[in-house]
Amino acid sequence: MHLTRHSDYTMRLLIYLAVQPDATPTIQEIADHYRISRNHLMKVANRAVQAGYVEGMRGRAGGLRLARPLKQINIGQVLRATENWDLVECFDTESNHCAISGGCGLQPILRRALEAYLATLDRYSLADVVARRPLLIQLLDLKTA
Amino acid sequence: MHLTRHSDYTMRLLIYLAVQPDATPTIQEIADHYRISRNHLMKVANRAVQAGYVEGMRGRAGGLRLARPLKQINIGQVLRATENWDLVECFDTESNHCAISGGCGLQPILRRALEAYLATLDRYSLADVVARRPLLIQLLDLKTA
Repeated sequence: MHLTRHSDYTMRLLIYLAVQPDATPTIQEIADHYRISRNHLMKVANRAVQAGYVEGMRGRAGGLRLARPLKQINIGQVLRATENWDLVECFDTESNHCAISGGCGLQPILRRALEAYLATLDRYSLADVVARRPLLIQLLDLKTA
Repeated sequence: MHLTRHSDYTMRLLIYLAVQPDATPTIQEIADHYRISRNHLMKVANRAVQAGYVEGMRGRAGGLRLARPLKQINIGQVLRATENWDLVECFDTESNHCAISGGCGLQPILRRALEAYLATLDRYSLADVVARRPLLIQLLDLKTA
C-alpha cells in the first residue's frame, strides 16, 4: 500500500513553497533541490495550480508560491484529490472482474478503514507538516530569507 | 493507494475456504472459480500455510482447508503480514532518497493514519467477511455442501 508518486511529489512541492513563503522558486529549482524529475514535478505543479493550492507568478521574478495560508491547506483534502483510493479491484466498478463482488464483506471493511485513515489526515494542515521549518531549510540546502 | 495482489488473493483464498468448511479444494479449483492465475494463487497459498491460516491435506482428498476457526482469523493480522506498508519512500530507510527525511512532518502523520486504518481492520475477522455465505456460494458457482 503506497501513495502514488503524484501524491508524494505534490506534498514535496507544497512543503518547499511553505518553508520559503517569500520566495517564488521555479519548478526547475524545486526539482533540483529534491533531485527529482522536472517533468514529473511540472505535471504535479499544474494540478496543484488547478486545485487552488499553488499559484504561478509571471515575469522576471516568475515562479510558484502557495495560494493560501498554511493552515488552510488540509492534508486530507490535498491527498483526497491527488491519490487513487481504489484499494482493491472492486472499488473501481468499471474495471472490476472479481467473482464475489456484491457478496464479499471485505469491501465495506476496507472502506471503513480508509475512512479512518482519511479522518486522521483531515486533522492536519501543511503548517503541521513544516513545523520544523529551520531543519527543512537546512535539509533542502536553501538560503534563509 | 492499492493493496498488493498478494493481499487481495490471500483474502480471496481465505474466503473460498471459509464458505466451504467441509471441502478441501485444490489450488486449481480455487483459481478456476475466481478466474485468476493458478501460479499466483500457489505462492499465496504457500505463504498462508506458513502463516498458519491454511493447511494442506495430502492423499486422494488432498487440497486446502482453513487451519483455524473463522473468528480466529483477524483481518488486520492477515493483512499486516501480506501487505507492504511503505506508504512513501521514507518508510523504507534503506532505499530512501528523499532530501527532507528527518525534518518532514508528513511521515509521522501518515503513520498515525496507517495506525487508524489497521486498528479498523483489527476489529474484523474472516467470519465478518463471509457473513453473506449463501450469496458467496452462489457467486463462486459452488455446490452447497
